[in-house]
Amino acid sequence: MKVLILAAGQGKRMKSKIPKVAHKILDKPMINWVTDVAKKITEDIGIVLGNGKDQVKELLDENVKIFEQKERLGTGHAVLCAEQFLDDSDILILYGDVPFISCQTLNSLIERHLKDNNSSTILSVRLEDPTGYGRIIKNEDKFVKIVEEKDADTSEKQIKEVYTGIAVYKGEQLKEALHRITPQNAQGEYYLTDVFELLEKVGVVELENEIEVIGINDRIQLAEAEKKIRKEILKKHMLNGVTIQDPDSTYISADVSIGADTIIYPQTFIYGKTTIGKDCEIGPLTRIKDCIIEDNVKIIRSECELSRIQKNVSIGPFSRLREGTELQENVKIGNFVETKKTKISCNSKAQHLTYLGDTYVGRNVNIGAGTITCNYDGKKKNKTFIDDGAFIGSNTSLVAPVNIGKNSLVGAGSVITKDVPDNALTLARAHQINKENWVLKRDSQNVEKGV
Amino acid sequence: MKVLILAAGQGKRMKSKIPKVAHKILDKPMINWVTDVAKKITEDIGIVLGNGKDQVKELLDENVKIFEQKERLGTGHAVLCAEQFLDDSDILILYGDVPFISCQTLNSLIERHLKDNNSSTILSVRLEDPTGYGRIIKNEDKFVKIVEEKDADTSEKQIKEVYTGIAVYKGEQLKEALHRITPQNAQGEYYLTDVFELLEKVGVVELENEIEVIGINDRIQLAEAEKKIRKEILKKHMLNGVTIQDPDSTYISADVSIGADTIIYPQTFIYGKTTIGKDCEIGPLTRIKDCIIEDNVKIIRSECELSRIQKNVSIGPFSRLREGTELQENVKIGNFVETKKTKISCNSKAQHLTYLGDTYVGRNVNIGAGTITCNYDGKKKNKTFIDDGAFIGSNTSLVAPVNIGKNSLVGAGSVITKDVPDNALTLARAHQINKENWVLKRDSQNVEKGV
Amino acid sequence: MKVLILAAGQGKRMKSKIPKVAHKILDKPMINWVTDVAKKITEDIGIVLGNGKDQVKELLDENVKIFEQKERLGTGHAVLCAEQFLDDSDILILYGDVPFISCQTLNSLIERHLKDNNSSTILSVRLEDPTGYGRIIKNEDKFVKIVEEKDADTSEKQIKEVYTGIAVYKGEQLKEALHRITPQNAQGEYYLTDVFELLEKVGVVELENEIEVIGINDRIQLAEAEKKIRKEILKKHMLNGVTIQDPDSTYISADVSIGADTIIYPQTFIYGKTTIGKDCEIGPLTRIKDCIIEDNVKIIRSECELSRIQKNVSIGPFSRLREGTELQENVKIGNFVETKKTKISCNSKAQHLTYLGDTYVGRNVNIGAGTITCNYDGKKKNKTFIDDGAFIGSNTSLVAPVNIGKNSLVGAGSVITKDVPDNALTLARAHQINKENWVLKRDSQNVEKGV
Repeated sequence: MKVLILAAGQGKRMKSKIPKVAHKILDKPMINWVTDVAKKITEDIGIVLGNGKDQVKELLDENVKIFEQKERLGTGHAVLCAEQFLDDSDILILYGDVPFISCQTLNSLIERHLKDNNSSTILSVRLEDPTGYGRIIKNEDKFVKIVEEKDADTSEKQIKEVYTGIAVYKGEQLKEALHRITPQNAQGEYYLTDVFELLEKVGVVELENEIEVIGINDRIQLAEAEKKIRKEILKKHMLNGVTIQDPDSTYISADVSIGADTIIYPQTFIYGKTTIGKDCEIGPLTRIKDCIIEDNVKIIRSECELSRIQKNVSIGPFSRLREGTELQENVKIGNFVETKKTKISCNSKAQHLTYLGDTYVGRNVNIGAGTITCNYDGKKKNKTFIDDGAFIGSNTSLVAPVNIGKNSLVGAGSVITKDVPDNALTLARAHQINKENWVLKRDSQNVEKGV
Repeated sequence: MKVLILAAGQGKRMKSKIPKVAHKILDKPMINWVTDVAKKITEDIGIVLGNGKDQVKELLDENVKIFEQKERLGTGHAVLCAEQFLDDSDILILYGDVPFISCQTLNSLIERHLKDNNSSTILSVRLEDPTGYGRIIKNEDKFVKIVEEKDADTSEKQIKEVYTGIAVYKGEQLKEALHRITPQNAQGEYYLTDVFELLEKVGVVELENEIEVIGINDRIQLAEAEKKIRKEILKKHMLNGVTIQDPDSTYISADVSIGADTIIYPQTFIYGKTTIGKDCEIGPLTRIKDCIIEDNVKIIRSECELSRIQKNVSIGPFSRLREGTELQENVKIGNFVETKKTKISCNSKAQHLTYLGDTYVGRNVNIGAGTITCNYDGKKKNKTFIDDGAFIGSNTSLVAPVNIGKNSLVGAGSVITKDVPDNALTLARAHQINKENWVLKRDSQNVEKGV
Repeated sequence: MKVLILAAGQGKRMKSKIPKVAHKILDKPMINWVTDVAKKITEDIGIVLGNGKDQVKELLDENVKIFEQKERLGTGHAVLCAEQFLDDSDILILYGDVPFISCQTLNSLIERHLKDNNSSTILSVRLEDPTGYGRIIKNEDKFVKIVEEKDADTSEKQIKEVYTGIAVYKGEQLKEALHRITPQNAQGEYYLTDVFELLEKVGVVELENEIEVIGINDRIQLAEAEKKIRKEILKKHMLNGVTIQDPDSTYISADVSIGADTIIYPQTFIYGKTTIGKDCEIGPLTRIKDCIIEDNVKIIRSECELSRIQKNVSIGPFSRLREGTELQENVKIGNFVETKKTKISCNSKAQHLTYLGDTYVGRNVNIGAGTITCNYDGKKKNKTFIDDGAFIGSNTSLVAPVNIGKNSLVGAGSVITKDVPDNALTLARAHQINKENWVLKRDSQNVEKGV
């Protein structure tokens, strides 16, 4: 089985310099919705590109075979541009701008194709209003032909079952048929639909969920399509035991997995290869991308990217975990805290106004409010190591590279430039001088600078 | 009058280890929507629990009488599990998973029940599509019987008035009737509806707003139900003179009160026992829980919990008031500010990157950017006291316990460990050393650590 | 051409002490939607105010002529209150609570009015359900009269074309007709509609988009109207090549311009005189007001007001640009950063937990995490000047007024009160003292204060 994806369309109505199929839906380029499904069917995937070929290429796996359609001469012509991809394998044709086709539907289509030994098996869909679509004409349940809107007579126009464009073919027969079609039509194009009359035995499988064949031509349709697939995805999670407080304002991409009894609050965006465990509370106002999150984690009004978060961690509100953050069990991250390339071990806390970059934090460490790891010296990034049980006083600067010993105490407001031994108390701050009644005398002097 | 709440259902379709009635709607467990209404009717409340009994118990007031239904043998059986609760009082039966029934509706029901001296008075509702519900059969406006879907003939199926399950009964008559019903039906269950044929005089009151009897069986219905009740709640506020910019993305629970000419912006969540005064601006992107907020307060993109906020205060964006925060008139809280167990008196300001914990701030105080109260010494929380008129320079650490005197000045960047007298200027910082042309010579030396 | 806006209505159902037309839609007072359109038609604008006259006056340009209607005696009376505004010019009558009328529609109306040399030309609209509206009675496409609902016979009630209230008149003829109408009706009011029977030649122009004549009477309608016009505005942007991920939760006011291939993510609010370039990514969870933003700018989950942002800048998440911020090309603003009256030159960065107020930052400057400009000395705001190439170490306090020289280095944790020469390394911090094994001995001593 091969899959050929037609993705050469210009997408003029998108009014974009980005090819249509590179526009994103739930943070994933449209074309990758299609390639991700194709990959579940076969490893042998071809794609026909035209406009913006190079931009699309960057979104594809290396082993996808790329064909170019240099002129817009119709879908039949597009397939012929990939002629060398056609052989005696069966071939499934998909579309770069029909992103929501499901693996399940395609498997049914293929199964029927093989079982009935068809030349081609078409995926059809029944539309309430079929106006504009090619109607499937049948005779006693057997496919006869596809009639385009403009060629349909009154009774044919009543037919609600229409051609979706998606079909599987015997590769050799398709190739041979394509060479016989001609551009004798108003548009002067080679239509793929013309092959069906040339093929021996054409079957039809009817699609159940119309959403799967939504096509996208402009940005209004792009937004509508995303809204529809979002609801489908959320419905699936809800039926699996995930609470979604407000599906209208929750954005979860297709590849995310979420455990039962997790609650997702509004304006939460969960994208990429993210897995979330059971009994978590996520959101509101939270963005998560490419994270692995274990059970019973709370993330409130925060940002997390490329991070691993173990059980019973709580994060936020107003915090940001950047790439390479790893939080072990029971860690607490509070508000206005940023972490980057930082591992924090069990039971440690960083709760207020803190930046931890390139840092290792041991177990049972308390990072005081306003702690900053000075990891950048203007030339390179340096590491901070904070051992188990250390207590970092508030408003401390840890000038990396630096090691803070086990169970040591760092006094509030210190600038730590040298290593701190285990069990030491370290201080680096000036003596306090109180100038009594200075304020009362101020009128007779200049205001001291630096207040 | 007694109220008995049936809440023993398993809620299998929720796919949850939490009992269905413990799931939250607008931050309040479903069961508490029902108990809150019941409390307005009577203090004598009973509840029948089954699955997850202990989890539900924790959500109930102490004086609610709890009965257990160990097997799922039907609604009639459920009521009999509370047999000892039935006496010669009238008894109203409600459902743990029908959370939106209103006090007003129940009062009408009870009033009719008493006035007509009924054995039972049923709450009915007229549904556009009654399929699946028990139809109310009447003869010249008098109740005859309830016919289940499967037993209904064609003309009965046309009836749109259906049984809601909610009804009030004479307690003794109900008890007696319940002992006479049998599980002679397909399910082998004891149906509460079977009692009506055994009672002397049954009345019917028709419900006006269908929303009140929405039942919840899975998480899709949970989300839909919340959306519907949200709109009802918001509508009420809008008609009272509150502007809700976008009702589709505003979340206000049923117990919140809001004054006229207050504006609520999108993605604002107002929960718990919160009252908001007149002429406020709240949101967008704001969460408030259990706060008392006076008139003319602005809270932008912030979090507030268990706090009291007086007139003319402005907060945010990006700030967080935690439990025990009290802000007096004209206080200004800016961005990236966290407060906890902190009282700030009139006209004082803390505008940037500040943490105030366990702190008293007097009047007319200016808290500079980056001020941090170091309230935790690794063992316990200590208090900071800042007297009227003090000026705390930026980036100051106040190491608690510590007192900052009236009208005193604390120099920027100081670490204050000792009390500051009234009217004093206090400084605690190192001298500045400029190493001239150091950068130009850097190539011939090692980069000095700690830059 | 003159425009007269009727805006004297009380708006009782708004339940507000603010006049109805002063309520905001997409952050702009309703009356200014109307005056903004009127200004595109003519400079000669009059307005009839009643209730809350002074509050509305503040929202108007100085050259708008204000007339007062002291009693509510009908629309005819309202126009007569502006009698001195009526002369031999044509006059267009608009309504303060019908905010979405478009310039295009009004131009068509006026064009027809002039071309046909009408006494008056009415704007009509065809409604699916015309109940309650005055029907336009025509005879062979010529205007005959307007019939109010209560006076309409059965066949007239079928008419779906109704009077919108908006019309253009020959000024003198209108004035003369107004003096002839009488309040002989149930309300005892002078109806503007009564003039049409007195005028020589009345034309009708039919409106295409119903939204343009939505009227607003309570806060539910206010929210609904905003939702409708929001969708219209967003649709226009989408068709122009702007991606709006979720139009349901995006708030863009009518005067904003956005370049092609810019993406707007959910819960983004763009208001005021904002222009956004091409290829930007804005949002989610972002508020922008009165900003000029060039191409390829990223603003994530941040607040920007009265700022100018050049090409290739990235901002956020969790940052706030306040008034007078200017960011040149390639500037990077990270998280928990606040700027105010601050200019940052090309390629400079301020990425973490920083406050820059009244500051100039040169090119290629690195502002370390936790840097704070101490711009306020309790009496006035002072300036900080940071020259090209400077490196400000983390957790530094810059006590203004202060100059940081070109290519200088400021050590982390310093409090800088004196100017730093070009190329200097400057440090202002205490020596670090490690008290070894202090923690082990702690049990036999008091915990040292200030940890």
